[in-house]
Amino acid sequence: MSATSANVSERRVQPPSLAISTVIFALRPSESSGRPTLWLPLVRRIRQPYLGQWALPGGPLAHSESLQDAASRNLLETTGLAPRYLEQLYAFGGLDRSAGQRLVSIVYWALVQPDEAALTRESENVRWFRADRLESLAFDHNEIVKYALWRLRNKMEYGSIAYHLLGERFTLAQVREVYEAVLDKELDPANFRRQLRSTPHIEPTDEHLTGTRHRPPRLYRYAGPVPDGSVRQPLPASP
Amino acid sequence: MSATSANVSERRVQPPSLAISTVIFALRPSESSGRPTLWLPLVRRIRQPYLGQWALPGGPLAHSESLQDAASRNLLETTGLAPRYLEQLYAFGGLDRSAGQRLVSIVYWALVQPDEAALTRESENVRWFRADRLESLAFDHNEIVKYALWRLRNKMEYGSIAYHLLGERFTLAQVREVYEAVLDKELDPANFRRQLRSTPHIEPTDEHLTGTRHRPPRLYRYAGPVPDGSVRQPLPASP
Repeated sequence: MSATSANVSERRVQPPSLAISTVIFALRPSESSGRPTLWLPLVRRIRQPYLGQWALPGGPLAHSESLQDAASRNLLETTGLAPRYLEQLYAFGGLDRSAGQRLVSIVYWALVQPDEAALTRESENVRWFRADRLESLAFDHNEIVKYALWRLRNKMEYGSIAYHLLGERFTLAQVREVYEAVLDKELDPANFRRQLRSTPHIEPTDEHLTGTRHRPPRLYRYAGPVPDGSVRQPLPASP
Repeated sequence: MSATSANVSERRVQPPSLAISTVIFALRPSESSGRPTLWLPLVRRIRQPYLGQWALPGGPLAHSESLQDAASRNLLETTGLAPRYLEQLYAFGGLDRSAGQRLVSIVYWALVQPDEAALTRESENVRWFRADRLESLAFDHNEIVKYALWRLRNKMEYGSIAYHLLGERFTLAQVREVYEAVLDKELDPANFRRQLRSTPHIEPTDEHLTGTRHRPPRLYRYAGPVPDGSVRQPLPASP
């Protein structure tokens, strides 16, 4: 048997590789309008395949860690982020995702608040990008981001997800800006305010936004249940 | 280096194994009351680990097939089932799921209609079990079934999922029986009927249930959107 045929048959029996990737969304001001928009951190590939292209933070699964622990560790190592909200998004395992090699990626996603996002170590190889203006990413990562955005928009209907993108206290206008950023459309302020006031779990506090304005707006807080993936979901203890 | 230490280090660098499993729910009559209840097919393990114990249908991922194709193929090979509705449930990757070996299972789930369920090849090693009365299964499969049931109950709130457990035409009483089976509680027939009639997408047909009854009940059909996982979900084409 020649070396070449041995390599071919070895590749055939090798199990598919397994990677953990993360999609992290945070609100940051638009460069042009200054309005909050959705951004995500990407990491530049420093090896083949896709050398030099931007990719979702991630890496291989170590033997001694759960999927979620691997996602957290990869994220911390590459971006410095340790999000409070991290949830499994989907397992991607198409045939030609990785330049001929069979690679299955289990993708986690996170929503981070502005204070968390500010802690990211940006560098030549780690940068935040606007979610709606991505260049061509490594692997099928454009498709994965598109899918994560779709899931995020769907989840907005259930309410509580929006507050993971805000701090503990927020104005009603800030909540509207989250919806506008995620849904990518303008909403009528008066209508939105009325709807939001009749939403359960949004409680006014005694505090107001500090600043120079004549009538500083009141701060609210979210006091409802947390969404899937954090507490309500009775995930088995072991996985 | 001795043979033993070579084996140990080999095991350490080996990537985690990857398996695809499926949870399939169908309605079948209860053995005692005859009322529809949730059942699922299980397969008896014919090798270690967990030799002889019942497990979810599944197997390894072949190199030339997508995750969903692997789920369909495993299901067909083990049970003869080819469900119309098959969706990714979750990836389970805890540390001690598989008797010391690191195993990640990507789990798909399906709802099958009674006519599909009737096509299952039952045998000494393939049998249907009541979902709420499972013995101790192989691996963490009891936990996976528990999680799938939780997801199914959550999805019932959005309506259309129930119709995957029924045929094309159904009576309003049959819909109530699905809800009763999944939620595991009795519902008031008159209230349920009233609620269901005001639900969009449930359309009366001109047909009635055939049988010997004096006033055969009218048959309805579901004419709304299909839920996540089939059409609405803009999953990337490649994975």
